[in-house]
Amino acid sequence: MTIQQMRDFLTRVPFNSLLGMRLHRVHRDGISVSCTLRPDLQNSAGAAHGGVTAAMADAAVGIAILRHFSGRRRATTVELKINYFRPVTEGRILARSHLLRIGSTLCVGSVDLSDEHGRAIGTAIVTYMLMDAQVDVAKARSAPQISRTR
Amino acid sequence: MTIQQMRDFLTRVPFNSLLGMRLHRVHRDGISVSCTLRPDLQNSAGAAHGGVTAAMADAAVGIAILRHFSGRRRATTVELKINYFRPVTEGRILARSHLLRIGSTLCVGSVDLSDEHGRAIGTAIVTYMLMDAQVDVAKARSAPQISRTR
Amino acid sequence: MTIQQMRDFLTRVPFNSLLGMRLHRVHRDGISVSCTLRPDLQNSAGAAHGGVTAAMADAAVGIAILRHFSGRRRATTVELKINYFRPVTEGRILARSHLLRIGSTLCVGSVDLSDEHGRAIGTAIVTYMLMDAQVDVAKARSAPQISRTR
Amino acid sequence: MTIQQMRDFLTRVPFNSLLGMRLHRVHRDGISVSCTLRPDLQNSAGAAHGGVTAAMADAAVGIAILRHFSGRRRATTVELKINYFRPVTEGRILARSHLLRIGSTLCVGSVDLSDEHGRAIGTAIVTYMLMDAQVDVAKARSAPQISRTR
Repeated sequence: MTIQQMRDFLTRVPFNSLLGMRLHRVHRDGISVSCTLRPDLQNSAGAAHGGVTAAMADAAVGIAILRHFSGRRRATTVELKINYFRPVTEGRILARSHLLRIGSTLCVGSVDLSDEHGRAIGTAIVTYMLMDAQVDVAKARSAPQISRTR
Repeated sequence: MTIQQMRDFLTRVPFNSLLGMRLHRVHRDGISVSCTLRPDLQNSAGAAHGGVTAAMADAAVGIAILRHFSGRRRATTVELKINYFRPVTEGRILARSHLLRIGSTLCVGSVDLSDEHGRAIGTAIVTYMLMDAQVDVAKARSAPQISRTR
Repeated sequence: MTIQQMRDFLTRVPFNSLLGMRLHRVHRDGISVSCTLRPDLQNSAGAAHGGVTAAMADAAVGIAILRHFSGRRRATTVELKINYFRPVTEGRILARSHLLRIGSTLCVGSVDLSDEHGRAIGTAIVTYMLMDAQVDVAKARSAPQISRTR
Repeated sequence: MTIQQMRDFLTRVPFNSLLGMRLHRVHRDGISVSCTLRPDLQNSAGAAHGGVTAAMADAAVGIAILRHFSGRRRATTVELKINYFRPVTEGRILARSHLLRIGSTLCVGSVDLSDEHGRAIGTAIVTYMLMDAQVDVAKARSAPQISRTR
């Protein structure tokens, strides 16, 4: 799966697109997505809303799983847990996923959340469930099967 | 704290406003917020993105805490955990909070997530930390102190 | 599934037995287990160790699932999240489960933790995965299939 | 804080001692505890009970915090979340903590759980709350203040 395909996937997910999420980097065991804080992503204190970073954690693990299976398996988020360490009031937020477990049914990733100065702003664990049997490669080529990131 | 004040608070939080969250109902031990699924709140499978329901759970507990303290304490989300039971592909989503614990430092609420047919679509637990000492009531009246929902 | 069968199951799980867990009550949507605080179940502050209440939450959901399927499905804990509200330094601890979701693969329950005075001491969400297809009833009768509570 | 002091602390916590937990190693950003699977720590499937690994995760973060503050701060677990990847049916279980956040009120650590072959068996995030102001060092020496690991 190419970086461009991952970028396209991220853009095609309407809510990720609404938040302005972008693929930041690809790592051996996961990927990073970024999102620049805009006024409409803020909470009442002027910091990034917890829902924004939760969505980023979800996407960072979802795309890492998508990539792991070369886009041939569909998966859906079944649970997510996140700790917030400090507010982010400006600049770019990063969510870097690490795939910890690829099971036959469940896949689990952890996520390091940081601000643009590299300070840790939170951590998350996200569990996805694989939804179906492996898609036939030939078929997948003609009609690419994409993972739900829910 | 009046229902109108809670409504105003919800609207003033930029991200809640972006998602179209509204105060749905006030309960003895919590509140309900609603959000109508729009195309830009969807994931790649056409269902509500997990970040939307996570944000709703966060807000539902935050506003219940705000109300508990009559708007005189500030609080920030420190962690959130959520399970997703089934996708929601249309209509209104509801998040109903129950305050379980009001401590001197931490407040915890659970959230029942449901679709407009009353089917359970998920559950969450959200922890907030109170950020400061109680605000002077007279001062609070002239310049109302609002809770961060992060 | 009779109350005696649930009692027997709880006793046959070695770790539940080590902690002295007992079936307390059967509810429409779950069950309650109890455990009396002993010196060897304490943490350094003389209160119930968090691992004790975590094990109780796990068992309370596991036995509710076992009962839901009349002991004919096996399930294993895939994740658990728990909040601790206050320490318990004496008496009996109760864990009351509510089944929230019985899916074709995953089952989720919430747990109310309380002390013997009925005060809330914590809350939990536990997710189990069903491990196999439904067991043949006739076979199940001769060699009862029990759920793993992990 | 010496390794021997950490060992002593672990042994003095009754429930950790009941499980047979031992300090395994000290790392720059955390510590490892180990526990050898015994029959009475098993679930109904003959694997380590989820309560055992939850207690290990709790202790691994608690002792890392204790060490961070050289034993001069008391802390209590406020929440814990854990994912189980695969059952452990024999040998030694390891829980390796990483301190992610030392705040003025809350401290958060992640935990890698593995079996004696180095296979990942789970992951956890544990949040502790600091309970009091810093203890006077002279006083602490004569009557060592220990952290609650709850």
